[in-house]
Amino acid sequence: MNEQNRLSEVPYYAVIFSSKRTAGDHGYAEMDQKLDELVVNQPGYLGAESVRNDEGKGITISYWASLEDIRNWKQNELHKTAQQQGRQVWYENYTVRICKVEREYSFGEI
Amino acid sequence: MNEQNRLSEVPYYAVIFSSKRTAGDHGYAEMDQKLDELVVNQPGYLGAESVRNDEGKGITISYWASLEDIRNWKQNELHKTAQQQGRQVWYENYTVRICKVEREYSFGEI
Repeated sequence: MNEQNRLSEVPYYAVIFSSKRTAGDHGYAEMDQKLDELVVNQPGYLGAESVRNDEGKGITISYWASLEDIRNWKQNELHKTAQQQGRQVWYENYTVRICKVEREYSFGEI
Repeated sequence: MNEQNRLSEVPYYAVIFSSKRTAGDHGYAEMDQKLDELVVNQPGYLGAESVRNDEGKGITISYWASLEDIRNWKQNELHKTAQQQGRQVWYENYTVRICKVEREYSFGEI
């Protein structure tokens, strides 16, 4: 996952994924890597950033050109498998927010 | 900072603050606490969530009822002082994204 200074001209879209992991890996790291490799080639994918702390609380944000691109990625077969595993095994809870990015500015070298 | 299951009926607004801290505290923790206490009483404030990892990479997202509420908080005097200190001392870099939250759903007990 990478972070870029200016992803795209606004407006574009963000998927905020706020989550709490369960304990243990249970295949999470392997799936995470596979999805990372897959997502970069999805139409409309602009980038992503992710932070998780020692208590398992994480925020991952992926950025997209359009709502249709987000819908298509949600329907990707491997991603659907991951979503199911996420609910069954990897996450205690999560919230997903679909957002339109209306303004963006930066300070410093990103 | 807290996270709630359903913050508000959509649409509402999110400020995504993605940052990289410099080394050392330099008064950051004290200011952070003061701002946390202040922001909860700001008109239109709905909540916030924040994660920072051991490398100093952090994502903080605050949620607001309107763009005007976000502008007013940006103009708050203590917050302006913090923004200046942030650029001078606390942050190597940051990106701010102002977003309209169009859809929200959750899994599990938040």
